Amino acid sequence: MSAAPPTPLTVRIGDVERVLPTVRAGNLGRVPLVEFIGDPEFTNAAAQAMLPLIPDGTELLLTVVTNALPLAHELSDRSGLPYVCARKKRRTYMQSPLIQDVPSLSLGVAETLWLDGPHAERLRGRRVAIVQDVVASGGTAQALAKFVVQAGGTVAGYLAAFRQGRPRIEVAALQDLPGRLP
Amino acid sequence: MSAAPPTPLTVRIGDVERVLPTVRAGNLGRVPLVEFIGDPEFTNAAAQAMLPLIPDGTELLLTVVTNALPLAHELSDRSGLPYVCARKKRRTYMQSPLIQDVPSLSLGVAETLWLDGPHAERLRGRRVAIVQDVVASGGTAQALAKFVVQAGGTVAGYLAAFRQGRPRIEVAALQDLPGRLP
Repeated sequence: MSAAPPTPLTVRIGDVERVLPTVRAGNLGRVPLVEFIGDPEFTNAAAQAMLPLIPDGTELLLTVVTNALPLAHELSDRSGLPYVCARKKRRTYMQSPLIQDVPSLSLGVAETLWLDGPHAERLRGRRVAIVQDVVASGGTAQALAKFVVQAGGTVAGYLAAFRQGRPRIEVAALQDLPGRLP
Repeated sequence: MSAAPPTPLTVRIGDVERVLPTVRAGNLGRVPLVEFIGDPEFTNAAAQAMLPLIPDGTELLLTVVTNALPLAHELSDRSGLPYVCARKKRRTYMQSPLIQDVPSLSLGVAETLWLDGPHAERLRGRRVAIVQDVVASGGTAQALAKFVVQAGGTVAGYLAAFRQGRPRIEVAALQDLPGRLP
């Protein structure tokens, strides 16, 4: 008796359809892989469709590298809202960066997020929406929200292209993905 | 007798002007910091201005994370040429990735670049232009060129928004930046 071959998952955003490959990701087992990097057509369709998900009163978008970066760029461009991006590595040029740890289920290890001081400054006094490509556990979203509070801003809400499984936060998404595949 | 304060560097692309802060970067001393991440207006202006720098006959663009990513996304979108992006970390989901080392002057340590197998496949038989935000020594550009050859493609040429100092390769750029500031 052998396991069934993994079923590719088809997603559709606007007119753009993609078959997501399934990949092993840490201790999550097999999950669908969403790649915006290298796919402007898919990225642009997602950004356009996410515009109505931006909470009313949002003044700035906050995201984190890497896969969400072209998506956040497009969403910023199309909404006219500025965006700020946290990093996953400390850069030598950073000035007084803010630091948040996030226990990442998909990697199986804790990750550290870095927000350069001058960028954190842009969050002060602003209503900030957290933007991601995929929200799974919600741990990264919570770490980003802590940056907002630490920088003196307020969290307007969370949005993502995809919600995978059951995140511990309320996130507006275009589509649900299965959290774990057979 | 004290050193003169660092002079901020002003750059202009199309209608967009930016004052670049100067930062300490590894053993390079003070260098101007170019940030496309978090700045769609600057990114879009650079992508638009770089369109004529794409070598004739180019079929695909190859770039590397992180700062060049929104730029490559925009350049791909505006040129209609697909793009592929190398990573600086091995991802658990990568399948038979190609690997290239690059001695990075700005970080002072060797870096490893990773190109996921399915993405490398897209380079096969294609004329590929290497796209970067800033080319300084040219070491990263050379590592990306090796990916192209390794994947069975040919290098059409190199382009960047900025050339900093004297790279060891011929790169088309919008503007020159000083390699090292006083």
